[in-house]
Amino acid sequence: MSLSVESESALAAAAPKSQLVQLKHGRASVAVMRDQWFIAAMSSELKSKPLATKLYGTPLVLFRDKEGKAGALVDRCPHRNVPLSLGQVTDDGNLRCPYHGWQFDRAGACKHIPSLASESEAKARRALSLPTIEQQGFIWVYASTEPDCVPNKKPHEFGLLGKAGYSTVTQVVEAKGTMFSTIENALDVPHTAFLHRGLFRSESRGLHITAKVQRSKDRVIAEYVGEPRPTGLIARILSPSGGIVTHFDRFIMPSVAQVEYSIGTENHFIADSIATPLDDFHTRIYAVVSFRSRLPHFLIRPFVKPLALRVFNQDAIILERQTELIEAFGGEQFASTEIDVLGKHIWRLMRTAERGGEALVEDEANEVTLIV
Amino acid sequence: MSLSVESESALAAAAPKSQLVQLKHGRASVAVMRDQWFIAAMSSELKSKPLATKLYGTPLVLFRDKEGKAGALVDRCPHRNVPLSLGQVTDDGNLRCPYHGWQFDRAGACKHIPSLASESEAKARRALSLPTIEQQGFIWVYASTEPDCVPNKKPHEFGLLGKAGYSTVTQVVEAKGTMFSTIENALDVPHTAFLHRGLFRSESRGLHITAKVQRSKDRVIAEYVGEPRPTGLIARILSPSGGIVTHFDRFIMPSVAQVEYSIGTENHFIADSIATPLDDFHTRIYAVVSFRSRLPHFLIRPFVKPLALRVFNQDAIILERQTELIEAFGGEQFASTEIDVLGKHIWRLMRTAERGGEALVEDEANEVTLIV
Amino acid sequence: MSLSVESESALAAAAPKSQLVQLKHGRASVAVMRDQWFIAAMSSELKSKPLATKLYGTPLVLFRDKEGKAGALVDRCPHRNVPLSLGQVTDDGNLRCPYHGWQFDRAGACKHIPSLASESEAKARRALSLPTIEQQGFIWVYASTEPDCVPNKKPHEFGLLGKAGYSTVTQVVEAKGTMFSTIENALDVPHTAFLHRGLFRSESRGLHITAKVQRSKDRVIAEYVGEPRPTGLIARILSPSGGIVTHFDRFIMPSVAQVEYSIGTENHFIADSIATPLDDFHTRIYAVVSFRSRLPHFLIRPFVKPLALRVFNQDAIILERQTELIEAFGGEQFASTEIDVLGKHIWRLMRTAERGGEALVEDEANEVTLIV
Repeated sequence: MSLSVESESALAAAAPKSQLVQLKHGRASVAVMRDQWFIAAMSSELKSKPLATKLYGTPLVLFRDKEGKAGALVDRCPHRNVPLSLGQVTDDGNLRCPYHGWQFDRAGACKHIPSLASESEAKARRALSLPTIEQQGFIWVYASTEPDCVPNKKPHEFGLLGKAGYSTVTQVVEAKGTMFSTIENALDVPHTAFLHRGLFRSESRGLHITAKVQRSKDRVIAEYVGEPRPTGLIARILSPSGGIVTHFDRFIMPSVAQVEYSIGTENHFIADSIATPLDDFHTRIYAVVSFRSRLPHFLIRPFVKPLALRVFNQDAIILERQTELIEAFGGEQFASTEIDVLGKHIWRLMRTAERGGEALVEDEANEVTLIV
Repeated sequence: MSLSVESESALAAAAPKSQLVQLKHGRASVAVMRDQWFIAAMSSELKSKPLATKLYGTPLVLFRDKEGKAGALVDRCPHRNVPLSLGQVTDDGNLRCPYHGWQFDRAGACKHIPSLASESEAKARRALSLPTIEQQGFIWVYASTEPDCVPNKKPHEFGLLGKAGYSTVTQVVEAKGTMFSTIENALDVPHTAFLHRGLFRSESRGLHITAKVQRSKDRVIAEYVGEPRPTGLIARILSPSGGIVTHFDRFIMPSVAQVEYSIGTENHFIADSIATPLDDFHTRIYAVVSFRSRLPHFLIRPFVKPLALRVFNQDAIILERQTELIEAFGGEQFASTEIDVLGKHIWRLMRTAERGGEALVEDEANEVTLIV
Repeated sequence: MSLSVESESALAAAAPKSQLVQLKHGRASVAVMRDQWFIAAMSSELKSKPLATKLYGTPLVLFRDKEGKAGALVDRCPHRNVPLSLGQVTDDGNLRCPYHGWQFDRAGACKHIPSLASESEAKARRALSLPTIEQQGFIWVYASTEPDCVPNKKPHEFGLLGKAGYSTVTQVVEAKGTMFSTIENALDVPHTAFLHRGLFRSESRGLHITAKVQRSKDRVIAEYVGEPRPTGLIARILSPSGGIVTHFDRFIMPSVAQVEYSIGTENHFIADSIATPLDDFHTRIYAVVSFRSRLPHFLIRPFVKPLALRVFNQDAIILERQTELIEAFGGEQFASTEIDVLGKHIWRLMRTAERGGEALVEDEANEVTLIV
């Protein structure tokens, strides 16, 4: 793993300087991926008031124009640098700064300056804007403030959302963790048997299974072959009588962690965890869980959220303590084994995207044995 | 606007490093003006106990000697760097450190060291002292710790304080804002119609007025010509029947923001806001408001303070959020228009004084049209 | 006094940048002494759960193996940098990480990795370990994480602990202060007459006494000659009728502050304050006070702890304010006199040890006159 130069110095500044142990190759798995889509909010959160959020440490403000179309600006008035999110949306659908009343449209153009006799629009008076798409109940922003930026890709689609026979549960959570660590955690199998003991898996039954890993330009996929039905609570509810298990873990650029499980022919489950990097060490997860089951969904639904939150809360505590420790040491120093099957691939994809060389990731495939 | 090198690095250290938006020319309008007078305290605050305060990030301690004369020392014992303000004033009028009992006079000389058999006074044992003047109920300190420094100017005088026919109200407030932003705010006209809507001015009546701006070596003055009586609450109380309005906004070096209003012949009002830079991002304002009115003063007095505080509180919230945002971005990036009439001149005066070239500011005059 | 480069930058980063007073030679008396023994915990604190502590800014975890033998590891799992102290000790006496369940023995070897089919032990998977000794009720760690490090010295022994005729009282306290300032404070005579007025000493009686100072390779000793029985409360309780006073103050490397008093032939008292540098600006003191007295010990015991804590609390307040001020100025600037008898020697010993040249300290002796 490597590290952006900026993160290194940020960590170095925070850490105490006279340490018994100084990391020789300390770093932080933080990658700033520009020109990628991230979720900024759920559609239901953005009403008539502007909504403040963050992306890669930069404050953003979302608002809807007269037609209800969502826009995203960097949350700073170009005039005197007051947060625009403290202001209001005018009847014209402009966002108005609370200090001197400057008004901006969705594209960031300054449409009005009170008391000014001359023209208000000017290049230096533009608020920075980000491309925005609203789809499937989420507001996505494109990580670029280049003027006239036209995204060359589309946001992730939730394949089972609204599909006949499927139910979907959505949840937003936040972790104190880098985006990398949070996503690796969401796709990591070994810790589920330990940290979440009893929820997913119980003690090891000593079975050898194989993880087939395939990395391509924008994703890495692990398929688990030979996996028995997990013995944990979740699996027993979904499929009391067992059945053939199909299990894929997928990381899809820039920040989708996707877990897909089929047990028998009737139970199918996809959990998408879409990460938004609020800043280097805080990550928001928009979790969209769709499932089909032989059991009546009204029986399953009440369990999905509490179980998912219990799992997430266990992870969140670990991520927070991990992050605090990384900050305390002024960097991380990870030692991996072959059963950390996806981590290095995820990092390579993120890191290459940060450097702008996305297309340069070569395909790679390997197999790993795990004991479960 | 420019920036002292020191402030730039302080901001850079505080800001998160991996940002989507990196300011190319981010700075902070912070100027350290030495050899200038600032208010350290009101006379009434300094009694027999030492009083701790701050100036440009440096802790100061004020105390009165046996004759009641105020002195100001850097609040740090030269011996083991304990704050002298934790100590006491002796019967001799010396300030005594609480740790080992070292005693200092108003000039910073070390007059006594308990247990020491040899002479106590020595150059290395001097506490740093600042020239001090007490006048009109305020204790002023001169921003210099040079030994034997003799100030070459005098502090600002409040012209109407104690003058026959005038009443005066005094108030101390603090803002989280740079001294520049706080003073610009105090003298900024356009925001009053917006942020303080209804207090000073109502919605624009579409009237064009002229601001005549004149900058000289130690001040910049804006005279507003053609201004109708404001429609806001304050004006209506002062002058229910209208009248000719005279309005001057003045910045006087190093930190006086002066607003003068006459409405008709009977109403005259001068508000001096004297700023003390506690540190780069915290500013204290000593406000001295003197007025004469056709109304009985006992009717007006009860309104002055609550109104002034309401106005100030609205400003303080904006300044704080502005400062937080500047810190979050690691700097400011302001876009101005011609109706930001005084800001650039104030900054030029402050910045030139910081560089020690006060006398080099050239005279300048211009006119600006505003719509009110 | 000098300063490690690292500490200088840490302080500079914390201090506000635009200061009226900039220290020209600001520093912090912080020395990182490797290959030295420090107390990590009292034996009674370490039971079946792992115990988190700190040394020189580095988090440590203590735990007992199956035989009850104490071990100390750097509190960070080499795998994903989660604190091992959040985990548990297994039945085998290994320390197990809470995240993926990696297990480590007292020497830091990775003994088990759940789900891993191949060998778990590997150099990169070692947790850093520190040599540990448990003696006289304290767990000492050796400030080194070098693999296979064999300490070349032994920890300090408490000479009177458990000796016939002596009683011992133990207390743990923490101060916000550098280890140097905390130890200098513990051995400083002049401040006792001032800060602790009435406890140790009263107002000066104008008596001249002599401090004989002797520095050798690993210690510096001040013997006070001609000292009358102190007039303070503590002394009056110990020896109501006076008697010849013998008084030694000793600093013994790396962090023992020892005060020894005899009053007459019957009263003998040694207070060892063993400092542990938690980080640059936080110091823990393990105080071990042993005494013999003509008075029944059951009468004295109840007074020792409250009196010692009262003294310590007065010191702790001063140390904290001193440290805050040093941080605010971005460094310290101490002016000393000849009655600061031990400080410069303590600093020289610490600083030389930091540079690894312990054996290079030359012997030195001098005499100083103090008025008490």
